[in-house]
Amino acid sequence: MISKVKNAMSTLVGGMIPHGHNHHHHSGNGQNCGSEGQPPRFPYGRPDFLDLTPELLQYSTEHASRPVLTLKRDSRLPWRTGYAEVINAGKSMLNEDQASCEKLFVKKPSGKHRNSTLQEDNGDATGIPLHFWGVYDGHAGSGAAIAASKLLHRLIRDRLGEVAHLLENPASPPPICLAKNGSPYQATESKKGAAAAAAAQQQQVEGGAAEEPDAISDPTVRYHMEKVVSMESLVMGVLENAFRQMDELIEKEKASYTISGGCCALTAVHMMGKLYVANAGDSRAIIIRNDEVIPMSNEFTPESERQRLQYLGFLRPELLGNEFTHMEFPRRIQHSELGKKMLFRDHTMTGWAYRTIVEDDLKFPLIYGEGKKARVMATIGVTRGLGDHDLKVYNSNIHIKPFLSCCPEVKVYDLSENKHGPDDVLVMGTDGLWDVTTDQEVADAVSTFLSGCDPSDPMRYTLAAQDLLMRSRGVLKERGWRLPSDRLGSGDDITVFVIPLVGHEGET
Amino acid sequence: MISKVKNAMSTLVGGMIPHGHNHHHHSGNGQNCGSEGQPPRFPYGRPDFLDLTPELLQYSTEHASRPVLTLKRDSRLPWRTGYAEVINAGKSMLNEDQASCEKLFVKKPSGKHRNSTLQEDNGDATGIPLHFWGVYDGHAGSGAAIAASKLLHRLIRDRLGEVAHLLENPASPPPICLAKNGSPYQATESKKGAAAAAAAQQQQVEGGAAEEPDAISDPTVRYHMEKVVSMESLVMGVLENAFRQMDELIEKEKASYTISGGCCALTAVHMMGKLYVANAGDSRAIIIRNDEVIPMSNEFTPESERQRLQYLGFLRPELLGNEFTHMEFPRRIQHSELGKKMLFRDHTMTGWAYRTIVEDDLKFPLIYGEGKKARVMATIGVTRGLGDHDLKVYNSNIHIKPFLSCCPEVKVYDLSENKHGPDDVLVMGTDGLWDVTTDQEVADAVSTFLSGCDPSDPMRYTLAAQDLLMRSRGVLKERGWRLPSDRLGSGDDITVFVIPLVGHEGET
Repeated sequence: MISKVKNAMSTLVGGMIPHGHNHHHHSGNGQNCGSEGQPPRFPYGRPDFLDLTPELLQYSTEHASRPVLTLKRDSRLPWRTGYAEVINAGKSMLNEDQASCEKLFVKKPSGKHRNSTLQEDNGDATGIPLHFWGVYDGHAGSGAAIAASKLLHRLIRDRLGEVAHLLENPASPPPICLAKNGSPYQATESKKGAAAAAAAQQQQVEGGAAEEPDAISDPTVRYHMEKVVSMESLVMGVLENAFRQMDELIEKEKASYTISGGCCALTAVHMMGKLYVANAGDSRAIIIRNDEVIPMSNEFTPESERQRLQYLGFLRPELLGNEFTHMEFPRRIQHSELGKKMLFRDHTMTGWAYRTIVEDDLKFPLIYGEGKKARVMATIGVTRGLGDHDLKVYNSNIHIKPFLSCCPEVKVYDLSENKHGPDDVLVMGTDGLWDVTTDQEVADAVSTFLSGCDPSDPMRYTLAAQDLLMRSRGVLKERGWRLPSDRLGSGDDITVFVIPLVGHEGET
Repeated sequence: MISKVKNAMSTLVGGMIPHGHNHHHHSGNGQNCGSEGQPPRFPYGRPDFLDLTPELLQYSTEHASRPVLTLKRDSRLPWRTGYAEVINAGKSMLNEDQASCEKLFVKKPSGKHRNSTLQEDNGDATGIPLHFWGVYDGHAGSGAAIAASKLLHRLIRDRLGEVAHLLENPASPPPICLAKNGSPYQATESKKGAAAAAAAQQQQVEGGAAEEPDAISDPTVRYHMEKVVSMESLVMGVLENAFRQMDELIEKEKASYTISGGCCALTAVHMMGKLYVANAGDSRAIIIRNDEVIPMSNEFTPESERQRLQYLGFLRPELLGNEFTHMEFPRRIQHSELGKKMLFRDHTMTGWAYRTIVEDDLKFPLIYGEGKKARVMATIGVTRGLGDHDLKVYNSNIHIKPFLSCCPEVKVYDLSENKHGPDDVLVMGTDGLWDVTTDQEVADAVSTFLSGCDPSDPMRYTLAAQDLLMRSRGVLKERGWRLPSDRLGSGDDITVFVIPLVGHEGET
């Protein structure tokens, strides 16, 4: 592995450093350049807050030594956030992880900016303050991860801006209907409608009688039923839609730029006393409070999303391109096994049963492999994220994207409802961290580390992040990267935020 | 409400009692007879183990007094199982709940029985012993619930019989492939295949390189990867498929019989030291151990399965018949709101966001209503169960069945791995129980009741079931059925099993 990496390094030295508009002629590894000669949307680099010199940037890519990069002692991130990262052991030329940490302000769209978005904050600290953290784990190139790390938080801020006039009044739930100018719209209710609605509600039973027929076909009927939507679920909806827009933006900009690959996206937003953690992919966030673990995300992988994917393959078999079957089998089937019975699972099943093998079952399974080796259509090991619009099954015209979701799952933590000590933190990390270190091990390590640290040391959370990272990377021995237990360390890119929760309970 | 019930009673008296083959001329309520004059598959009745006289059967249907039926003092169910039931307050003529409790024996299919199924146990107590409990909550008629209560456990026993030769050897996992005679089949592995597999495994990375192309297109390739399937998940698969077969059987038998309506099905199977709880619908099972609640099922309702249903409507819009939209809105939309912005959720969202209303959004929402009033296509309040093959949206040709699932979720509890006292029980109940009594209230009530009972009283679990049932039914006051707290009691049919767990830890 090491020699393979060494050879790659010489290619890298000439091609990696960010430069002007001619960069797409360099770096034959294809991760930075469009195959059609389009410029990348953003040049490769590490997060701005690391403030790396070109020399350090190059040093950061040494797969043989895998130097750990941390926030500098004189740098400050909001909330004294700690950060550390390390490149992979050679699986890709560059570190495909990215990260961002921002303080932004949510403003109502002004006249001149109403239709412009994605502006950098202009230093005007008015509006609702918002803190943002994102980790992006790229694959098949770093383009999507870099684009998301530059733009997703601005999309979130702008979408929140559109409902800022509602957020200002957090005690009253958002109105169900808005006029074009954004003010609540109250339709007048027809008396006939109200009567029909009341009758229909009376008639509803568990499974029997249908509603008043008028109530279904007559759209003037307005039911008395009105769901109350909370401000919290409005913010969740903003996050969900911002991820979708980020994905659409990548697709759109691919017309003019190269944006290679795809990425998992895990973001945390703090606004008005609540922490919203949105996850699309296999990164993970946990809160450690009083040494206890509170999971803030679930992973989305071929195994965890098997049934969703099989259901799509079942309903839209044309997406499987006559090469794949939506059935799952515990291993490949051989021709000689036709007519025999084999264990299988379909989209409705969690257990296994036997079925008689038919010709169609010889196709490759849509979901195949176990654990970290599980793949969708033998290609990709995560099922949610941004980008991947061009991803196809090798040597075929079968697109993977329809099976991937760009929609995050959002979890909410009410910071103002809990008390926190200086060792209570939110840890966000890419899968490189969690693959070899369990939640409890991370919690124990953070608690032990921070309790031995001066509470006033501004570096304590960065040092904790570095400590976590070392526990997953290990040290290079003759038989590869090894942990103190002699188990194999993670050969993946690793990115870690350690975010203290103390002192922000009253922030809005 | 009471007068409505009174009028219904006179109709009932003539038509309800089980009788021979001319019963389909009676009972004008349509719950017992085919609209096309076909005989019902099974006559209406209460569970056999209640051993009701015709007089008692008729007495059981008095909506005005709602008598509680329990197991008789001289009756015995396996495991000293306790049972109680009560009819609804008038929403349907008959009690649409059903229940069954059986001891069965899983046998290898013998030569002459290989193709016959659904036999009654012939008293031959050889084979693997299996205990079975089922509660079935019918809607729009009692046919499906009765059919399931008579047949589902036999289907499960017969499907288990087909793998009985594997179950006999529980320590070794079930073979992946079986020859026609049921013995393990081991395909010979081509050397080329093995080499290609090894190469492909080496190449797999998270999202980048595809596999060795040969490995996908060449079915002679047998990967080294073989998932190990546990005996437990084989039993889970049997349960999942038995539910599906029960649903298919109802559909098939509807060609010759009337099997009215549909039903939620909640079953518990004890075999070889483990308790398997399979649930399709909104009934619920909990284990109470040392006063602590262990949930053994999740409910499947329009709210809990909103995203699955919306996804189907999104992928197969023709199933919505141009009458419904897969979007969810917090209330009906009026014509005057076209062009305005309204809160919505689609199949990808948990939060809410605003969208500009277009003509299509005026259609009735696929999922509509809140809590117990939530409906699929304004018709049905549960999303999993058996039957309902003919169920259509009122006054339309739109079928509901494609949106319903007959597949249960199966949870496993290892009885042999836990110690139990005489007050530790499995409680299974239809939604009538849980609608007004929380899990914790049920646990507290059971624990309090049983601790005040003689541990050797054979009736103690039936008395506990009766006590639970009374807590949800309440007593009839001037303003309806009321609980001691004066809250409204359940007006639904209620069925409760209380199953002791002590003393069965060593049973296999």
